[in-house]
Amino acid sequence: MRLTQHDATAPTGMRNNYVVMRPQNLSVGVLPVHDDGSVTLVGQQRFGLMNYSWEMPEGGAPYDEDPIDGVKRELAEEAGLAASHWREALKIELSNSITDQRAMAWVAWGLSAMPIAPDPTEIIRVTRVPFGDLMREIARGSVRDMFTVATTLRAYHMAHQGELPPCLAKAMLASVR
Amino acid sequence: MRLTQHDATAPTGMRNNYVVMRPQNLSVGVLPVHDDGSVTLVGQQRFGLMNYSWEMPEGGAPYDEDPIDGVKRELAEEAGLAASHWREALKIELSNSITDQRAMAWVAWGLSAMPIAPDPTEIIRVTRVPFGDLMREIARGSVRDMFTVATTLRAYHMAHQGELPPCLAKAMLASVR
Repeated sequence: MRLTQHDATAPTGMRNNYVVMRPQNLSVGVLPVHDDGSVTLVGQQRFGLMNYSWEMPEGGAPYDEDPIDGVKRELAEEAGLAASHWREALKIELSNSITDQRAMAWVAWGLSAMPIAPDPTEIIRVTRVPFGDLMREIARGSVRDMFTVATTLRAYHMAHQGELPPCLAKAMLASVR
Repeated sequence: MRLTQHDATAPTGMRNNYVVMRPQNLSVGVLPVHDDGSVTLVGQQRFGLMNYSWEMPEGGAPYDEDPIDGVKRELAEEAGLAASHWREALKIELSNSITDQRAMAWVAWGLSAMPIAPDPTEIIRVTRVPFGDLMREIARGSVRDMFTVATTLRAYHMAHQGELPPCLAKAMLASVR
């Protein structure tokens, strides 16, 4: 991670000093949806907030890596899954007033088990819950990772709007409410 | 903004060095929805990403301020609006691997004009678009601020789930698709 500092003229015409965090990678994440409409989540301790967080598989893809390769790696390493179908869900900016970090997220389906090669620096738990349970936990504020929240809500929108296979969308939405 | 560094034992039992960004405020944001289902957005140049960004009114509320007072101030300063009804939409964490920053977002309605006292360090444009247009620009990746994206998608969910007044929800959803 780099921090850069810039003396610049703001749109107001005033001089201003800008500091930008430059994480040197693209954030990538995927919501893996099983044929029955359930989703796989991963849980881990987050140091900064001193709490436990349930999230979609996500991580960083270096700028010289194809983002889809990066997200496939995260899905395998964190959730032990491979997916036959990928659909882009979001292209977003994480926190545009302090960092240049961009993010891409996908919804993936056609899931199959992959042997996990766990990262020895992390302890990650894996669980599988109905899509509607995840939506309810977001509404309640207990799933709080913003990238996971945005992607899950976009998946809900995609399911409603015909952007996912009808059977999959039906299975996802059946568990909402 | 503070950066703190910590020598700690990770859940794996290994020693680890953690750096945490501590912005010293809560991020607050609001999607202001007019009776006809349109929403007010604000646009500004973002230095870090060198682009122009359309967003909901958002900003920081110091920890010693009531968050609802902070978000009311942002709505007035950035959009020139006051709202008679507020409904909490999200409680989230912005980027839990590098910062302790939390965020709260609301959907607000019953809007009326407030005289704007513009911040002299910012040039902000204000626009009003149908809710469905905002949803489409998110799906296309042209509205990219993650906090705005997550809150808008949650507002879509709230409109579908009966968490907003029926007339307002109907007006919002009429413009989707």
